[in-house]
Amino acid sequence: MANAGTAAKHLSFYNIKDSFGITQLVVPGASQSHLREIMRGIPTESSVLIEGEVKHRPSSARRESQSGEIEVEVRNVVLLNPVCEQLPFLPSEEENLPNEDIRLKYRYLDLRRDALTRNMKKRHQITHLTRNYLNDSGRISVPLNGFLEVETPMLIRSSPEGAREFLVPSRIYDPDPHFYALPQSPQQLKQILICSGSVDKYYQIARCFRDEDGRKDRQPEFTQIDMEMAYISWGSRDSSPEDGWRIGGLEIRHVVENLMKQIWKVAMDMDLLNFPVLTYREAIAKYGSDKPDLRIPLQIHSLTGSRPNQSEHIVEFLIIRRDDSGFSEVARSLAISPTDNDIERFVISDDNIRSWYINSEILNVQGPDTFTHLAEFNLVVGDIIWVSTRETRRRSAYSPLGQVRLKLASLAESLGHYVPSSKPHFLWITEFPLFTRDDDDKNLTGRGRWCSTHHPFTAPMADDLELFWNNRIEEVRGQHYDLVLNGVEIGGGSVRIHDRLMQEHTFTKILELSEHERASFDHLLSALSCGAPPHGGIAIEVHENEGLDRLLALLCNAKSIRDVIAFPKNASGMDLLLKSPSPIGGEVLKTYGLKSIRKTI
Amino acid sequence: MANAGTAAKHLSFYNIKDSFGITQLVVPGASQSHLREIMRGIPTESSVLIEGEVKHRPSSARRESQSGEIEVEVRNVVLLNPVCEQLPFLPSEEENLPNEDIRLKYRYLDLRRDALTRNMKKRHQITHLTRNYLNDSGRISVPLNGFLEVETPMLIRSSPEGAREFLVPSRIYDPDPHFYALPQSPQQLKQILICSGSVDKYYQIARCFRDEDGRKDRQPEFTQIDMEMAYISWGSRDSSPEDGWRIGGLEIRHVVENLMKQIWKVAMDMDLLNFPVLTYREAIAKYGSDKPDLRIPLQIHSLTGSRPNQSEHIVEFLIIRRDDSGFSEVARSLAISPTDNDIERFVISDDNIRSWYINSEILNVQGPDTFTHLAEFNLVVGDIIWVSTRETRRRSAYSPLGQVRLKLASLAESLGHYVPSSKPHFLWITEFPLFTRDDDDKNLTGRGRWCSTHHPFTAPMADDLELFWNNRIEEVRGQHYDLVLNGVEIGGGSVRIHDRLMQEHTFTKILELSEHERASFDHLLSALSCGAPPHGGIAIEVHENEGLDRLLALLCNAKSIRDVIAFPKNASGMDLLLKSPSPIGGEVLKTYGLKSIRKTI
Repeated sequence: MANAGTAAKHLSFYNIKDSFGITQLVVPGASQSHLREIMRGIPTESSVLIEGEVKHRPSSARRESQSGEIEVEVRNVVLLNPVCEQLPFLPSEEENLPNEDIRLKYRYLDLRRDALTRNMKKRHQITHLTRNYLNDSGRISVPLNGFLEVETPMLIRSSPEGAREFLVPSRIYDPDPHFYALPQSPQQLKQILICSGSVDKYYQIARCFRDEDGRKDRQPEFTQIDMEMAYISWGSRDSSPEDGWRIGGLEIRHVVENLMKQIWKVAMDMDLLNFPVLTYREAIAKYGSDKPDLRIPLQIHSLTGSRPNQSEHIVEFLIIRRDDSGFSEVARSLAISPTDNDIERFVISDDNIRSWYINSEILNVQGPDTFTHLAEFNLVVGDIIWVSTRETRRRSAYSPLGQVRLKLASLAESLGHYVPSSKPHFLWITEFPLFTRDDDDKNLTGRGRWCSTHHPFTAPMADDLELFWNNRIEEVRGQHYDLVLNGVEIGGGSVRIHDRLMQEHTFTKILELSEHERASFDHLLSALSCGAPPHGGIAIEVHENEGLDRLLALLCNAKSIRDVIAFPKNASGMDLLLKSPSPIGGEVLKTYGLKSIRKTI
Repeated sequence: MANAGTAAKHLSFYNIKDSFGITQLVVPGASQSHLREIMRGIPTESSVLIEGEVKHRPSSARRESQSGEIEVEVRNVVLLNPVCEQLPFLPSEEENLPNEDIRLKYRYLDLRRDALTRNMKKRHQITHLTRNYLNDSGRISVPLNGFLEVETPMLIRSSPEGAREFLVPSRIYDPDPHFYALPQSPQQLKQILICSGSVDKYYQIARCFRDEDGRKDRQPEFTQIDMEMAYISWGSRDSSPEDGWRIGGLEIRHVVENLMKQIWKVAMDMDLLNFPVLTYREAIAKYGSDKPDLRIPLQIHSLTGSRPNQSEHIVEFLIIRRDDSGFSEVARSLAISPTDNDIERFVISDDNIRSWYINSEILNVQGPDTFTHLAEFNLVVGDIIWVSTRETRRRSAYSPLGQVRLKLASLAESLGHYVPSSKPHFLWITEFPLFTRDDDDKNLTGRGRWCSTHHPFTAPMADDLELFWNNRIEEVRGQHYDLVLNGVEIGGGSVRIHDRLMQEHTFTKILELSEHERASFDHLLSALSCGAPPHGGIAIEVHENEGLDRLLALLCNAKSIRDVIAFPKNASGMDLLLKSPSPIGGEVLKTYGLKSIRKTI
């Protein structure tokens, strides 16, 4: 691709670009004026063939880029393919780009931007590194072979509700139309594969599909790193490990942790330490979130002397000291919505330092017992304290003070008072409640019943087996692990149930699936009955449908996941390059036993 | 997985199996009788944990398998997961397996068979080798970096006719239902990617989809190795290379040839020589096929002195000498259908050796001139000669004598007279006619017009550019290359058109696309106009929808491609494990603006 050049004395300079970057061309001497003529006539962004001599650039003129140390002294130019229409924009003019919809329509031009070219390379590098690592990584925990990549089908069975799935009509339609579905994840198939005993360690860089509209920066198709291992450990009942990992699945933890270390080493040249482990309860208590951003230097407190028992409300505090240069100013300016009854804020002054708690409705509900414990905070004039109450048991992604913590950080960051560490902060969250009261976000429930916090195949913690069998549903914790990076959940997995009776108990006694719903898991139950090994796994994916793409966006410092996907769809799920989706003729629909609702036959 | 054991003296032996294979367990001494009790009680195919001491087996008892040199002296046994239902079959009893539909339904058991476990491993090994090779292989032809794997979308635009595609309804349906389509190949997207100049060398191990029913041993989804390169060579007009490759795309040829050499080296421990090159015309003339099996030692002849000109019929001969021990007997027994007018057979005897050609209707049509040339065959009594005639220009996969050649080989092989070489015979076929009279197998035509022999993006040969622009359609040869292995086409590709005017000429003047049809290529035409580099590529796939799977079946010596796919569908496209496809409720259909034809609302 040639760009217009500049002439200096008898030399003329032009830039040529390929996938390595920009290389400078030099046309020397007046005798070569016909070459300059040709070069000037070449439209910008055309394809050219340059013949000439590659030379070292003068050391003063060398640049940092891959081809910055050389230049080419041109002897001959062939115009391979000229630009033959008015370009809608010039990809080299980064400051002058049109809106994203236009760039998506002309993706073949937009991809010429250096930033996107770099992203495609980094994506390749990281997926290839991941494959190489997993193929060999068995050696980390087990002395012999590594993981096998196994392709699972894309045309699978639709789930009973069909929510969020994409369907694929088949030409089998007697008497009613029959459909395949595209996988939201290879979850069941990878479990069945491991149940077979054919493969002990499976992975797949797998394309997944989710039909969710109305959410920004999501793609209907995304890529995840999916893994599953046979014979992984169950957490034992009385384990008390040093770092707090009391569930099973240590083998998965090691594989993933080392993978992330290697990715950061190669892509960012950073050495990561071991990832800390928090239980769900600790994470909510200290940071008010089940995916806390550990870079933010703020912690939530409760009163050590007055812990309520587990079934009640808990009172929590967030304190910003007056001399905290990062957060003191934003803490003063952050208002609380008057409709918010769960939260109060007090700015400590000479006037209220001995009385502020008396004005707290939340603390008054707790009774004067509480007041004596407040001394441990050592509040001084100028400090700011939030008081909040929440149900201990209610599962939510953020507590009220967790939200305040994030707001403070976001405000402070935007004002430049707080700069998040450039080192990534990874952590594991474990011991989630295994079941949650229904939640609109879940497929299999939504009728006031219990649903699985993650999915119905997760095993209960060894410590909680009695609670599980006795249907003390609310108290059972699962052998689930989330991997969190800088406050974003980038992966989740679990030790699975391998015992058929335990799986049936989950389906029928806890989730109360109908016969029809349960039947859709028959193959899995049968696979468990055939001597399936204990197993577990993980999927590296963000927000359930961003997958590897979001991780890559973080690594590429890209604002949108669309910048790390070669041919993305826009926020409405439209492919503006191919103009898809598009209508289909009625005759074609008929071959599937379908017709449009609108049309009358 | 434990299998029932045997007892010898005071020792008892049991077999345990994991993904490495079978390991022998030993329970020594009478004192361990409680262990034997436990072992005997474990149902076959259950999951067990064995603790004990790994020992070298006595040298007389060592086996060839991966774990054949060791045995484990058992100290403790934990039954991790017992088989708790009657197994439909025992995967270890290879001679006693049920029919394939039952095995597909219980795929988690079938996958336990050693043969399938080995296939999964080989599949992984070869795809990983392919990726490693392509990532580095730029070094073979170009001194710098290699190929980038780029993921192209699976939800793409449906083609105007929608033939053979799978459709995916979207929830955009105002006023009519809108659909995505699943890709039959990433052809257009990879070209657009290369047109962008962002990536010079692309590959993808890509899932593709084709909705073809009624063909045995095909899968609706399959995997292909897909490649595309920028700046590849065009064949020059006056090239006369030694080995007959007179078109462009040499870079692709080298990459693929070296990839295949590496796969055979690693998977089969074989060193392959360079692959020979035949033009389409030579292949048909010598072997009667555009994908000849070069292992078969039979060639077709024509009369050197009486070559007809190109627009006419050609007379061809296939001769089996009386002392050809491999084919003489089957040549005698192979009958010719009396309705076949294009072909005759003569067994040379004392009686007819000087007169057989007078009885040949085909040779008589050519006139007595021909007879004088027959002397060059030096026929003797006991030889067998076939005479056939075909149109020189008509494109077909097999000529009449090409079919005879294959039948002779198949018969001789089944009788044990001919054993095909175990060395693979690769070759390249080039210089196909660029256009063919319509053909039911093609998407874009079928109305008595010309259609592209392969696809409409293939460039004409440099030698034939004048014919192309002058619409001497029948005579134009394309820059297409097929890779053939033992008579099976395992890949095909071409140098693409990068000139917009040339692509438009193909669409409008030759293929006579309607405005609507042409519009579906607008994005590609526009990408070409923006200074796209010259480019070309290949896809390793067999029969257009068997992909890598067939190649792997060859390498694994598997009878069916289903044996190299973890979760295949049966010949009717049904997934018997997941019971898919399946019907969908009317309410779900409504969200797509669809309803069943059968139902009345």
